This record gives sequence, C-alpha cells and structure tokens, in this order.
Amino acid sequence: MTDYALAVDLGGTKVEAAIVDPTGSVLPGSRHRRPSGQAATSDDLARSVTEAVQDAVGALVDATRHDRVVGIGIGSAGPLVGSDGRVSPLNLPAWRGYPLGDLVASLVPDVPVVTRIDGIAITLAETWVGAAQGEHNVMGMVVSTGVGGGLLLDGRTHGGPSGNAGHIGHVQVAGHDDQCACGARGCLEAVASGPRTVAWARRNGWAGDSGEQLAESARGGDPIARAAIERSATAVGQAIASTSALLDLDVVAIGGGFSHVADDYIDIVARTVAGHSDFGFVTSTRVVASGLSGEGPLIGAAALIHHREQVG
Amino acid sequence: MTDYALAVDLGGTKVEAAIVDPTGSVLPGSRHRRPSGQAATSDDLARSVTEAVQDAVGALVDATRHDRVVGIGIGSAGPLVGSDGRVSPLNLPAWRGYPLGDLVASLVPDVPVVTRIDGIAITLAETWVGAAQGEHNVMGMVVSTGVGGGLLLDGRTHGGPSGNAGHIGHVQVAGHDDQCACGARGCLEAVASGPRTVAWARRNGWAGDSGEQLAESARGGDPIARAAIERSATAVGQAIASTSALLDLDVVAIGGGFSHVADDYIDIVARTVAGHSDFGFVTSTRVVASGLSGEGPLIGAAALIHHREQVG
Repeated sequence: MTDYALAVDLGGTKVEAAIVDPTGSVLPGSRHRRPSGQAATSDDLARSVTEAVQDAVGALVDATRHDRVVGIGIGSAGPLVGSDGRVSPLNLPAWRGYPLGDLVASLVPDVPVVTRIDGIAITLAETWVGAAQGEHNVMGMVVSTGVGGGLLLDGRTHGGPSGNAGHIGHVQVAGHDDQCACGARGCLEAVASGPRTVAWARRNGWAGDSGEQLAESARGGDPIARAAIERSATAVGQAIASTSALLDLDVVAIGGGFSHVADDYIDIVARTVAGHSDFGFVTSTRVVASGLSGEGPLIGAAALIHHREQVG
Repeated sequence: MTDYALAVDLGGTKVEAAIVDPTGSVLPGSRHRRPSGQAATSDDLARSVTEAVQDAVGALVDATRHDRVVGIGIGSAGPLVGSDGRVSPLNLPAWRGYPLGDLVASLVPDVPVVTRIDGIAITLAETWVGAAQGEHNVMGMVVSTGVGGGLLLDGRTHGGPSGNAGHIGHVQVAGHDDQCACGARGCLEAVASGPRTVAWARRNGWAGDSGEQLAESARGGDPIARAAIERSATAVGQAIASTSALLDLDVVAIGGGFSHVADDYIDIVARTVAGHSDFGFVTSTRVVASGLSGEGPLIGAAALIHHREQVG
C-alpha cells in the first residue's frame, strides 16, 4: 500500500490538485486544474477547489484501489493569515481570511492538512526533487509577473508568525527607487519583475511589449533589451546578497518564466552575488536555475505531507 | 547551590568576562575587562582573554565557594568561522580562524562552551531581560560605529552555517548608493552608522565631527544635523522593513550609542516601518528601544548557557 499526499496549489489564475507519491512523482491522470482569478466570487473559487480536488482524488480511487491519502498539503498564493489554512491571496479579492484548509479537509476527511505559502512549497520541492537536494539553507525563488520566494533555514521552512515570510520581492535594492505595488519604493519586484523590466525597456526607447519580445530583441543584439535584462538579473543578485547577509544561505534556486528571458540570466545573478562584497559568507551563496518542472508547486505542496519533518 | 554561566564578550576594543546567574544578573565584582584592538598581537589577545576570564572566575570562588560554573557562553565580534568557537573578528586582524572557544575551555575545563556572534548574544539578552521578553521572532540591533544584529526565529537563534547570519548592516537600502567598507554599495551600515551620518552632515555643510556634536546641533535646531539624523533612522526603518518582508519579525529592539543621538530616533525608525507598505505583516513589526544596560552583551553570552534551548 502506498501512502499518497493530496497536493493543492492555489494561484492567481488557477487552482490545481494532484496525487503525489512518496518519491515525489505525480500519479498519472491525477493532475486537475480549474480557474480562479480576480473576478471570481467566493463560491466560484470554492467550486473550483472542490472540483479539482474531487477529480484528483477520483483518479486515485480509479487507479489504485488499495492505496490511500495520508495527508493534504496546500500551497497558496499569499498573503496567508497564520498557518492554520486561512488565505487572503492578493489577486483573489473574494477570499480574505478564507478557511481554505477547512474546505479541503471537508472533501477528504480524517487526514491532516498543512497549508503554507506557495514560495515555501516551491522551496521544499527544490530540496526534494529539484536543484537544492540535500541542502539545509535554501531560498526557492520565482521571477515572473511578480517576484516571490520561500525559505528553508537549518533544514526547516520558515513561514513566520503570519505565514508570510519569504517575500524576497519586497526586499529593497540599493540604487533604485521604483514605486512598488505594495506601496513601498525600490522593492526587488518593482525593479526586476517581467512587466517592470519590459516597462523599463520601453521607457528607454525599446518598442516591444512582452517578455518574449524582450528576449527575442536581446538575442538579436538590441542593446536596450539586453540592458533591461541585465538590470533585472543584477537587482535579483543584489537582493539575494542582502538576504544572505541576513540569513547565510547556501543556495538559491531561481525559476519562473522571466528567468528564462536570456540563456545567461541565472549566470548574471550568480556573478552579481559572487562579486558583491568582501564577505565570503555572502559571496559563497550558490545561485542555480530551478530544477523543477511545471509540477513543482504541486510536488512542493505534497512535501508539506511527505516531508513534514522539514515544515516549521 | 547556584548554577552560574561564565560569560565572555569579545569586541573590537576590549574583551570582557563575568559570572552570570540563572536570573540574568551579573555577580557583583565578577565583571572584568582587558584591551583588544587592531594593533594587538595574537598573544596579546590571548592574554587579555585569559586574564579577564581568570579574574571573573576568581570572583566566583572568592564570593561563593559552594557554587559552580556550568557552562561558558562566548559572544564574539564577527565574522565567525562556523559555530565551533573559531573567530575572525574584522577589527582584530591578529585572529583569523582563531580557536577562541578552545582557549576559554582550557581555562575552565569540563563544561560546555557555546560561541555565537555578538548580535545573537544581544538578541538573547533582549528576550531574556530586555525589551523583547517572551517574544519568538526578534531582531536585536546595534546602531553605533557599525550597524549589526542577530536573529531569533520561531524561538531559536539563527546563525546560519557559517555563524554569520544577522548582518542587518549589510542589507541594502533603496534610494542610496553609498560605498560600504564591505565592498558593496548602499548597505545600511554605509548609510546609517554614526560615522557615516556625521560624514553626510559634513558633506552638506555642517561643521562638527562627532555624533555627540551632531546630537547637540540637532537639539539646537540645526536643520542639516536634524536631516542627517532623520536620514539614518529612516534607512534603519527601510532595512527593517526588508527584513520583515523576508522573516515576518514581531519585534526589533535597537540599541547602540548612535540610537541615542535624538530622543525620537527610535520613533522615526518605528514610523518608517509602520508606514512602509500595504503589507500588514511588515508594518506590524514593532520597533522598540533596547531594554539592555551595558551588561547586555555579557548577559546575552550567558544566555547561550542558561537558555541553550533557544540556541540554534
């Protein structure tokens, strides 16, 4: 008999659920997706979660009658409200303090439910099946429409009392003063996200309007597109250096769509960190590309169950 | 019989030792000091440590023949080399990877020795007898010639694999680009330390040359002196906000000579954090003045023994 985890990943545009085995593999046919989104009502969101979960669990019953779900791991877009399963995702305004953990528990009774911010799930996935296997002081990061992350410190995740630790996107970057959506200025996300990098290039005379076009222009030798990409990667490196000054990280694994904007994006980040200062405990922090596939967030949510000894 | 800790605090200009009881009180007559300093040889430093420790322990034997030392706690200026007692204090060039823990252990055999960076000792002292009693997610900070700190996360100290976590002075601050002694730019220490704040005021036309004079000028209504102080406190608040975005801190306790440069210095820091962004988990971080006396670093070193369950 195999002990499976039910994994749920709640994001700003979709919710996914899947069954994940103790080796970190998604059970074939068990991954299901439903829409979420800014415009969704609370009922819409609850229905999407319910259907995705029921479809995922249905696949398990069909496929492997003698197996069982031993726990439910939920990775959610932030902010959270503590670590008891209540969520207030910034881009899902219908849910504020919504008891997502209780909803999913009602669908699959009598097993433990562990809810954490999605950055923590990604970080656990990197240490389990990704680019930070065996490491104990890790930040998993995503550079995409936003910039987010999660922390594993001394072998355990750190969510903090509100569950929201790991917001690397809202660490300030020296030499910048861009207005951030959070209300502050000079946050990494306001400098280095995909949309902000595209906007910077446009302000400096580049004519496109997407990350894909920016990547193409840079490959074609456009100096402004290239400068925009270097500006983003350098800022990411600066924020990682600040984080390592505080936390003495061993490795940072970076994924997310915009991290693929140039073949050497991760290299620029790594060089920025390696050359940042005279402090060896900062510059020795390794920066690597994420080792996760698109299943990473679900595998990470499952790690909340399969590797609960790492969950702080 | 009382279980005492031997506390040792190694700094850039002096080393101190004392005997501390389980309530966090320094045994009268047991606090002893010897010089350290940039010019000291390794033998000079070892002699100073040895004499301070022997004098401290001597006071215990004289005063309370039936008591005993149950452990040795050492707080050291950084960087450290791991957590096994080797130290490389930036301002004591004669010691690089020096086994300070082993030296002290040889003077008081057969008891455990715990060595951590001084910022961690201060943070433990704040939670034990200072301004953060009973708190679990804390940063203790010093704003002085440098800017330093230490972290307590989820009730345990976080030193990181090299022992050097907590370097808040080398977190970058948005909107600044000052060259830092560490080699990077825009670090909090390069913007907000006492000497850097005095230097900024001088560059802007103020005529004095010490923190004390800056305090006096600001009290007398000098607008440049006042602006310099506000610039320092605001930068400290910005770096605390970045730290809380990452770590979701509950409280930050600030001490150090320069934090007394104006009666409202801590208030300016606190207002900066409270108004930083729309993220409640950042802006709810409380900023308070240190609750420690000059004995704080020694009490914190003793906490490494008396509260070893908090030492990560």
